[in-house]
Amino acid sequence: MNSIVQSQSQPIKEGQTTRTTTHLLVKCPDQPGIVSKLSTFLFEHNANIVESSQYSTDPEGGIFFIRIAYNCENSAEKIKQMEKDFAEIAQQYNMTYRFHYPSIRQRSAIFVSSDLNCLMELLWEWQNGDLQMDIAVIISNYEFARPIAEAHGIPFYYIPANKDIRLQVEAKQIKLMHEYNIDLLILARYMQILTPNFVSHFENQIINIHHSFLPAFIGADPYSRAHQRGVKLIGATSHYVTNELDEGPIIEQDVERVDHRDDISTLKKIGGKIERRVLARAVRWHLENRIIVEGNKTIVFQ
Amino acid sequence: MNSIVQSQSQPIKEGQTTRTTTHLLVKCPDQPGIVSKLSTFLFEHNANIVESSQYSTDPEGGIFFIRIAYNCENSAEKIKQMEKDFAEIAQQYNMTYRFHYPSIRQRSAIFVSSDLNCLMELLWEWQNGDLQMDIAVIISNYEFARPIAEAHGIPFYYIPANKDIRLQVEAKQIKLMHEYNIDLLILARYMQILTPNFVSHFENQIINIHHSFLPAFIGADPYSRAHQRGVKLIGATSHYVTNELDEGPIIEQDVERVDHRDDISTLKKIGGKIERRVLARAVRWHLENRIIVEGNKTIVFQ
Amino acid sequence: MNSIVQSQSQPIKEGQTTRTTTHLLVKCPDQPGIVSKLSTFLFEHNANIVESSQYSTDPEGGIFFIRIAYNCENSAEKIKQMEKDFAEIAQQYNMTYRFHYPSIRQRSAIFVSSDLNCLMELLWEWQNGDLQMDIAVIISNYEFARPIAEAHGIPFYYIPANKDIRLQVEAKQIKLMHEYNIDLLILARYMQILTPNFVSHFENQIINIHHSFLPAFIGADPYSRAHQRGVKLIGATSHYVTNELDEGPIIEQDVERVDHRDDISTLKKIGGKIERRVLARAVRWHLENRIIVEGNKTIVFQ
Amino acid sequence: MNSIVQSQSQPIKEGQTTRTTTHLLVKCPDQPGIVSKLSTFLFEHNANIVESSQYSTDPEGGIFFIRIAYNCENSAEKIKQMEKDFAEIAQQYNMTYRFHYPSIRQRSAIFVSSDLNCLMELLWEWQNGDLQMDIAVIISNYEFARPIAEAHGIPFYYIPANKDIRLQVEAKQIKLMHEYNIDLLILARYMQILTPNFVSHFENQIINIHHSFLPAFIGADPYSRAHQRGVKLIGATSHYVTNELDEGPIIEQDVERVDHRDDISTLKKIGGKIERRVLARAVRWHLENRIIVEGNKTIVFQ
Repeated sequence: MNSIVQSQSQPIKEGQTTRTTTHLLVKCPDQPGIVSKLSTFLFEHNANIVESSQYSTDPEGGIFFIRIAYNCENSAEKIKQMEKDFAEIAQQYNMTYRFHYPSIRQRSAIFVSSDLNCLMELLWEWQNGDLQMDIAVIISNYEFARPIAEAHGIPFYYIPANKDIRLQVEAKQIKLMHEYNIDLLILARYMQILTPNFVSHFENQIINIHHSFLPAFIGADPYSRAHQRGVKLIGATSHYVTNELDEGPIIEQDVERVDHRDDISTLKKIGGKIERRVLARAVRWHLENRIIVEGNKTIVFQ
Repeated sequence: MNSIVQSQSQPIKEGQTTRTTTHLLVKCPDQPGIVSKLSTFLFEHNANIVESSQYSTDPEGGIFFIRIAYNCENSAEKIKQMEKDFAEIAQQYNMTYRFHYPSIRQRSAIFVSSDLNCLMELLWEWQNGDLQMDIAVIISNYEFARPIAEAHGIPFYYIPANKDIRLQVEAKQIKLMHEYNIDLLILARYMQILTPNFVSHFENQIINIHHSFLPAFIGADPYSRAHQRGVKLIGATSHYVTNELDEGPIIEQDVERVDHRDDISTLKKIGGKIERRVLARAVRWHLENRIIVEGNKTIVFQ
Repeated sequence: MNSIVQSQSQPIKEGQTTRTTTHLLVKCPDQPGIVSKLSTFLFEHNANIVESSQYSTDPEGGIFFIRIAYNCENSAEKIKQMEKDFAEIAQQYNMTYRFHYPSIRQRSAIFVSSDLNCLMELLWEWQNGDLQMDIAVIISNYEFARPIAEAHGIPFYYIPANKDIRLQVEAKQIKLMHEYNIDLLILARYMQILTPNFVSHFENQIINIHHSFLPAFIGADPYSRAHQRGVKLIGATSHYVTNELDEGPIIEQDVERVDHRDDISTLKKIGGKIERRVLARAVRWHLENRIIVEGNKTIVFQ
Repeated sequence: MNSIVQSQSQPIKEGQTTRTTTHLLVKCPDQPGIVSKLSTFLFEHNANIVESSQYSTDPEGGIFFIRIAYNCENSAEKIKQMEKDFAEIAQQYNMTYRFHYPSIRQRSAIFVSSDLNCLMELLWEWQNGDLQMDIAVIISNYEFARPIAEAHGIPFYYIPANKDIRLQVEAKQIKLMHEYNIDLLILARYMQILTPNFVSHFENQIINIHHSFLPAFIGADPYSRAHQRGVKLIGATSHYVTNELDEGPIIEQDVERVDHRDDISTLKKIGGKIERRVLARAVRWHLENRIIVEGNKTIVFQ
């Protein structure tokens, strides 16, 4: 079952109330009447739909996806009843689904190596209020990011890493993820390969930025290889991490124009600007529950 | 009342049946339960929603807009019953609305002067099947477009025009619009100003392409003025025509980068490529019933 | 030696005179004084430089490239003397070079299969005067393009082709290229692989359009593979053809944004628009002598 | 005389030597032989041209502009001699010109109000080494920027400002500009109008960012007016400040796509990202001596 659209919702504590927008993500076999069923359910529970996006792989026998944003008084008691009532519909239509309550902010960990551009952009957008998450911890295999982390009051862990000590390193990181109760791992130019074991702990919860327009230049040194190939555009790709290197579901990509005069260091400068905006967008869409992973692709409801 | 979203639908002839996608556009005061009502109505009439986009100016007391695309067996009898049933909902929710049946192709007239680029693009996309309309007639104040029109088997009318004979010219044109039963007038670089009388006959039915990124360079000679001002981007804007020159609801805009070396004739060449793609997109969205005009703005459901 | 920048210039017939802009392309080891030498040479031959672009791979020991556009009275006698004088400088500085006289229009052959979009765009820009070449012949392995070719008065050859008869096919094509005295072969979506023998006849004279942003999706069916991979951008690449499939020097690339809703046929439509503008730009730059091939990369002087 | 391209160069102190790239900007009536003269001059002074860009408004009787980047041993003695020798050529060809020696970093002052996005971007790019200038002082009519200025060790002056005390405010600011020996004033969203007197002190030395694609939405509240007009693109423009509000020579512009769902606050967010990159580019080009102001337009040599 898909971990983003699943039949478990985030818990709401007893007595807690939220009044702003809730997101409901649903996936099920397509058939007539789904929208009618969902919208009537919401209406009968005094929820007012403010945004709705849907997609079907095929109206005849395909898979149906919908993201509904609705406003509703969200007391814990109300939510409990609503989820209980919804479970029946979900069973009837064979739905996987998830409610995202705005009161529950996702907790993220940012992994970074020596290039701090993407980290800086994330911190900036986070401070501007454009990334609704808690940044619980920053982890790096270098010390460079420490002053920035500390200036923002974010716990920083320096964990040296290399191929030979990968398992110990990842054991420490996994422990930290649990200690800090992390929902989302952001690899903001973290230049270490993650093992299948690590990735398996965080399915569709790790967002990476790769410094090329995938599938071009998978793997190491994409800017050098772009320079070597003489491309006229360079790009960056943000994707969920899977066990296939740079092969996970793509969330967002962008490019900039370059020419023969641009050496590798210039490509890196230009590329750095693409990376930071592409990663920030991908993280924002993730936090706004706009993304559904289906197979090796993403549906991004704008 | 808004002429695009109105309480009158296009007629279906007795016995005629369509099986492909119908579009329903609705506008009404926002209130809870609209989506539920609409989707339940469609479900009960055996219509399967394949696409749905909505927008509310404000969930509290705003105006609600929705475009639903649905598949349904569309016999004339069925349509008659469905529209009758829908009229009750519409009254209850104070809706203006319109059903667009795919069997009924819009009939367009293309107006053009001496620059044939936009006309050529429209003909090309139309031949490729990307513009689902009948091109019923081409009208020009020059003879240049005649061979192209004739090569495509489209009736061509040469109607010389200038300020002094505007009323006679427009009288002829209006007569032709009625003779050819025109739904959509496309001004594909037609360089004559239309009178309020003419425009009033075709509210939200005239699409123009203006050769600047409006509201910059309203009026004549935008490329010369762009050159004079030293802008670094030039653009084009497609909009519905109203009685305020170049002030109608904007449908689509795009730009390209230019620099100090580009003289006016180069700006025209670059701009011509922008114009043709911007106009073609605007016409396509109009034909796909993606546009709702609200006040002096458009809602374009992508 | 590089065939674009070489020590042979196009011949000017006795008595022929051109008064418009000539292009001089030069490549040589970088050293101080080259610009001084070239500009003084031109000044002393009454040539007025109107545009000049240069590039050095490295000012210390690198390779220097320059494109100079100059106005000059170009009688055959004058040209003869100028080229003779220039030969001495070229020897002294170890230059490869080429004079391009505006009076001599390049003669092109367009190869096309069943998708006529790129062909149409080339014909259009050619008629607008934006592609300064003679289109001497159109060759296809289908009959589809015949009416268009004939409507434009361009000789059309239907040469059925497949893997098994490749050598015979290419022999016919090479013969036609010689008969029509072709300088430039444009593969405007010609879906046959060319043999090394064929390519060797036309080094840096064959421009192809590939329907992906290379090096992503080399080879067949790039749109299907782009759909499969779930990319958020699709693109097109124009390049000179070498014996490595889709690996030749890239001239120009561009992309457009797509999303999860776009099926393969939509990707093809969107991609078709990218292809046609990318190919047209590449051909234009080639005709304006803006491109120098160096190794597997291009220098494009804008 | 044009203040950017003028017959005075920045002084080099006795004994000081620079070995990196010098820029020579020249403007003069076009005539044959200029490039020859300049390049021969440089060659004879052991200078190696590494980049050269030129532009003529008209080869027959127009104005000629050139930017030459050259490498040369730059002792103070050498420079003195070279400038003396050059003065003769300048007189002969009626040139205005300027040598920019890399050893002399421009000193900038950043003016900002309450929106710190552009300031942050400038500081970031400056720290990355992409803006080769000294930031000598930050001035604001709010206290918001103080902590950031102080964290970067840059003197900060809080100067409250409004219409009524404009003259006193500007007197203080002009005094500071002289005290800090400022070459470049950057208005990074400084929301006060400058008087002609102030502007006259710093001709072509003040770079502003305006939050619209000029000439659309000149003046106050461009995002509100863009929202009101229903444009489909919003933009930002960086320009030199003159006494005509938002009418100075445009250096750079860019846009982003928006749609009907974007309210004013979303337009501001999207626009903020455009503003910061447009301003940073304009400042970089200014510092790299790529810009020549000619009348009310800029020539930007890329």
